[in-house]
Amino acid sequence: MIESVAIVGTGLIGTSIGLALRRAGFDGEIVGVDAKGDEAAMAVSMGACDRVGAFDDVWKCDVVVLAVPVLTILDFLGRLAPLMGPDQLITDVGSTKLQIFEMVRSLRGNEVRVRMLPGHPMAGKESGGAELGDAGLFEGAMWLFTPAEEEWDVEREWREWVTRFGARTMDMDARRHDQVCAWVSHLPQMVATAMAAMYEDEFGAEPEIAAEFQAIGGRALREMTRLGASPYSMWRDVAMSNTEPLAATLFALEQRLQHLREGLRTPELREEFRLANAFRARK
Amino acid sequence: MIESVAIVGTGLIGTSIGLALRRAGFDGEIVGVDAKGDEAAMAVSMGACDRVGAFDDVWKCDVVVLAVPVLTILDFLGRLAPLMGPDQLITDVGSTKLQIFEMVRSLRGNEVRVRMLPGHPMAGKESGGAELGDAGLFEGAMWLFTPAEEEWDVEREWREWVTRFGARTMDMDARRHDQVCAWVSHLPQMVATAMAAMYEDEFGAEPEIAAEFQAIGGRALREMTRLGASPYSMWRDVAMSNTEPLAATLFALEQRLQHLREGLRTPELREEFRLANAFRARK
Repeated sequence: MIESVAIVGTGLIGTSIGLALRRAGFDGEIVGVDAKGDEAAMAVSMGACDRVGAFDDVWKCDVVVLAVPVLTILDFLGRLAPLMGPDQLITDVGSTKLQIFEMVRSLRGNEVRVRMLPGHPMAGKESGGAELGDAGLFEGAMWLFTPAEEEWDVEREWREWVTRFGARTMDMDARRHDQVCAWVSHLPQMVATAMAAMYEDEFGAEPEIAAEFQAIGGRALREMTRLGASPYSMWRDVAMSNTEPLAATLFALEQRLQHLREGLRTPELREEFRLANAFRARK
Repeated sequence: MIESVAIVGTGLIGTSIGLALRRAGFDGEIVGVDAKGDEAAMAVSMGACDRVGAFDDVWKCDVVVLAVPVLTILDFLGRLAPLMGPDQLITDVGSTKLQIFEMVRSLRGNEVRVRMLPGHPMAGKESGGAELGDAGLFEGAMWLFTPAEEEWDVEREWREWVTRFGARTMDMDARRHDQVCAWVSHLPQMVATAMAAMYEDEFGAEPEIAAEFQAIGGRALREMTRLGASPYSMWRDVAMSNTEPLAATLFALEQRLQHLREGLRTPELREEFRLANAFRARK
């Protein structure tokens, strides 16, 4: 029976998890920790946590949710695991899973007794921070898990809470997770970043022209660059921990754009639109 | 005083113009023409036009709005201009303007007496068709004009109607228009098409995996591929009439993506995010 939860990293996702727990009826204690004291205080003021905690509060909780960038997750895993016991659970929300999965496996091999369940909710916003936290953020979203061991009680209970947040869950192989996410999540992010950066280079030196171009571009331009607002701090860790799969999708898109460019006045363009229409016609 | 308007092409934009005219208080006659009889009948049933017309009804109207793809606009311009007089106006909503502008100039040189105002509302949806017509489609949107001659009465009146649709208007040089639109409109479209086509190639053969990937990708994937549903028929004419500016923006993005890919594990990635964040922070 989970009676206390520590949320490490009370940014957008961490704060939303605290709020979602409360809305779903969790009445145990929620402790929030963040390297930025402001963020933890904001999460408390929003009701996502009961109090701001220290490291020594974290490892005593029944469940620890690591809601920080991937490389920081690896760091916390290494520090927390030896302190915790077999009735506790460490889970995370990191964007890549293979390195975390492999570290969990390796910690288990070293007779660490705490149980760990790598996870990844496919939800977010282009801007971060506790103040954007939202109890409904996970409604209808997919929450992926890449289990490293057999399911047990505390894990089962955590999965139930996630379902009560309104999320659907799916288990995946960790390597497969990282490849799929390179295609459907990391590539769209990097394309939006590259496009927004290119526009800034092209038009940014003339603010009036930049403003005019945004007005002219309208919805299509806004949508295709929205993720350009995403923070480097999180995506650096994705790029570091999923470099090869991400580079492969970027290279594939570069070739695809070249093909389209060379075929602008040929029937090849029709074929690209046919395929794109077919993709969008899927449910 | 504009008392009759012919809308040639009662798809999404043409039908929306008819509906917007009515909502703004236009009480003259609106005649609709479409190569697809169904579309024209739908526009009438929605109240966007009073009746379905023939070619001989079109050139007798005070204003003719050409709401068809660019190459078809050029065709209609050539057929209509010699039949019309100096108290009438031909305008259009084509996505590229230089070829239309040059044809207008050339027709004027040949002592054609009708006045012509090339135009381009920056509004639309990824799907077309009369049934998606919307009187509010142009609210807050930019409606560009690339005038080929001095302003006169009928033109001034048409500009007033456009303002009553809720659009803002801006005049631009036609060549500049095509370059700007290559960056802010045509490039986003082609990127969305290339991405959606690539996903269809990668995952389309396995419908269950495609559905799973769309669920996992969530909002970012949906947004970045939404325009993949756009029709080839319209974008072929954009590619044909704006090939070089569009190819230049595609090539620039290919190089940008290559740069980002080669710098995934370097401080270059930080600089890309910094520029992208700066672009998105603009109003």
